[in-house]
Amino acid sequence: MSITSLRSAGAAAAALCALALPALADPLPSWNDTAAEAAIIAFVERVTDPASGDYVPEADRIAVFDNDGTLWAEQPAYFQLLFALDVLKSRAEADPSILSSDVLKAAAAGDMAGMMAGGEAGLLEILDISHSGVSPEEFMATARDWLSTATHPGTGMPFTAMTYQPMLELLRYLRDEGFATYIVSGGGIDFIRSFAEEAYGIPPWQVVGSEGNTSYSAEGGTPLITKDGGVTFIDDKEGKPVGIMRHIGQRPIFAAGNSDGDFQMLEWTTAGEGPRFGMIVHHTDGAREFAYDRESSIGRLDRGLDEAEARGWLVVDMAQDWSRVWAGGE
Amino acid sequence: MSITSLRSAGAAAAALCALALPALADPLPSWNDTAAEAAIIAFVERVTDPASGDYVPEADRIAVFDNDGTLWAEQPAYFQLLFALDVLKSRAEADPSILSSDVLKAAAAGDMAGMMAGGEAGLLEILDISHSGVSPEEFMATARDWLSTATHPGTGMPFTAMTYQPMLELLRYLRDEGFATYIVSGGGIDFIRSFAEEAYGIPPWQVVGSEGNTSYSAEGGTPLITKDGGVTFIDDKEGKPVGIMRHIGQRPIFAAGNSDGDFQMLEWTTAGEGPRFGMIVHHTDGAREFAYDRESSIGRLDRGLDEAEARGWLVVDMAQDWSRVWAGGE
Repeated sequence: MSITSLRSAGAAAAALCALALPALADPLPSWNDTAAEAAIIAFVERVTDPASGDYVPEADRIAVFDNDGTLWAEQPAYFQLLFALDVLKSRAEADPSILSSDVLKAAAAGDMAGMMAGGEAGLLEILDISHSGVSPEEFMATARDWLSTATHPGTGMPFTAMTYQPMLELLRYLRDEGFATYIVSGGGIDFIRSFAEEAYGIPPWQVVGSEGNTSYSAEGGTPLITKDGGVTFIDDKEGKPVGIMRHIGQRPIFAAGNSDGDFQMLEWTTAGEGPRFGMIVHHTDGAREFAYDRESSIGRLDRGLDEAEARGWLVVDMAQDWSRVWAGGE
Repeated sequence: MSITSLRSAGAAAAALCALALPALADPLPSWNDTAAEAAIIAFVERVTDPASGDYVPEADRIAVFDNDGTLWAEQPAYFQLLFALDVLKSRAEADPSILSSDVLKAAAAGDMAGMMAGGEAGLLEILDISHSGVSPEEFMATARDWLSTATHPGTGMPFTAMTYQPMLELLRYLRDEGFATYIVSGGGIDFIRSFAEEAYGIPPWQVVGSEGNTSYSAEGGTPLITKDGGVTFIDDKEGKPVGIMRHIGQRPIFAAGNSDGDFQMLEWTTAGEGPRFGMIVHHTDGAREFAYDRESSIGRLDRGLDEAEARGWLVVDMAQDWSRVWAGGE
C-alpha cells in the first residue's frame, strides 16, 4: 500500500467518524436549560475528559439510581404493592382460604384502612403471599403480564409509561459516556428485574433490591429455585450502601434518589475521594406529576432537603427543570 | 473525496482488519488437541454463529466458574484459610488476648490437628477473627498485600501464579466470543474480589461468593461499611444456584466446577432449555499439580464423577487435556 492510499484511508476514516458523531446534539432534551442540566453535563464532561484532573477510568464510572420516585412514579402507593394486591385478589378468587388474616381479607376487599391497620407486618404478609411459592422466572413473568395490562388508578396510564423521560435520557447519556448504570431500590429485586431491561435498558445483573428467601431443589428430577417468602435483605436506608458493596463491590461516583431512604446511598457515594455527584429528584410538580416531600408517608424527603446544599447535592426541581415528565406521554 | 480515494480507504481498512485478526490462531494454546478442547470450541462456535439453530444472543451468554480447584489450586488447604491463619498469627503477636479459644490458640501455634478439632465452627471462628472489624476495602487491601508476598507451602510459588493457564485462556476465549464470565465460589466474596480482576480479568461485580454481615454507619462523620463477622450466605452446593439468581438474575448457559460443591450449579445450568455446557476439572495430575477426587476432604468429587457422562458434562482430565498447568510457570 502506498503512503498516498494510507493518507486517503485516514481521511476517509476521519470523515466517517465526523458523520457518526452528532456534534452539539443535546443529550438531555427533556431537561430545561437550567443549572441542573448544566451541572450534570459539566460533571460528566469532567470525569470523561482524559485531559481533566478529574478524569475517571470507565471501570470506575458507576452510577446508582433509586427506582420508586426516581425513575418512575410512586404515588398513591408503590406500584409493587398495587401489583401484590391484584395478585392477592386473583388468587383469593380461585381459593378464598388463602385469606387467613384480617389484613389479607381487608386487602382482597380493597379496604385500604383495614389493610394499613396491620402496619408493616401486614404489608409484608401481603407481599409474602403474592410473591412466594413460585420460581423467580415465573414471578417475573407474572409481573410482566400485570405491567402489560394494569393501569394506574389516577392517570389511567400503564405503569411503565410512568417512567420519567428525563431520567431515561440521563441513564442513556451516562451509558453513552462509559458509565455502568445500576438500580438500587428498596423494592423487590425480582419485581424490578421483570421490567428494568425493557423500561430502562438495565439488565437483571445491574439491579440491586430487597430480597426474600429462595431455595434450590432438584427433587422430582427438575431443578427449581423457589421464592419461599420472608425477607432476608432490605435494600433501604443503611441497607443501600451495604447492598451496593455486596452486588457491585465498589463505591459509585454518581448516585440519584428522591427520598430519605436514599440518604445513606448519596452520603456514602459522595464521601468517596475524587469527583462525586449526588442528586435528589424533588417532587414539586403537582400539575404534571405529584407534589410531596417532608410530610409524605411514601417517599418522604426531609433530611435530604435540609442537608443537600451543604453536602453539594443537586436538588432537581421537577416543575422547573423538566420540560416533559412521562416517558409515555407529554 | 473522490471515488478512488474511498476505494483506497476501503482497501486500507480491509488490510488493517486482516492484520488485526490472527485467523486460525488456537484460542486455547495450553489445551492439548483432545476431545475436551474440541468439545469446548464446538459449543462456543454453535452458540455464537448467527446461522446456527443453537445461536444464543450475547446478553444470554453467561458463563459461571467455581474458583478453588477450578481457576486456581486448593491443596493442601483453601488459600483463603492460609491467609486467615497468617492474619490471625500476626494479630496475635500484637495482641495475644485475641486468642480466646483453644481453636484460635492452636491455629496461631500452627497446630493443625488442634485447629481441625474445632470442626466447621472452629474454622468459622478463625475466619471471623481475621475477616471482621474492617471495611471491605481495607480487607481487600490486606488480602492483596498477603497475596503479593506469601508463597505456597508446597510449590513455593506465589498463590496467584497457581492459577491455571488453560482456564485463563478459556475465560479470555469466552469473553472474546461475547460471554460474560462470573466467578461463583464458596469462598468469601471480598477475598476473591481482592485478586480476581488482576488474575482473571473478572471485575468485582462479576464475583459471587459467600458473604458475611456488613453494616453501614456514618457516626463520627465519615461514612463506613464494616465487616461485622458471621456468615449470612454460603455460596456452596444448593447455595450456588441461589447466589447466581440473586446476583446475576438469569440462568447461565455454561458452568465449570471441580467438586461436588459445584454439582447443583452444573445441574441447574445444564437443565435449562437450549444449548448448555457443563464442565468438571478432574484433578488427575499428581506430577504437575495434585491428584484427588472421591476421597479428598478438600474438593471432593464423587457424585459428579458418577453422573457426568449421563448428564452430558465434560470431564477435563488435567493430565491428559492440559499441556501446561500453572499460569506462573511451565
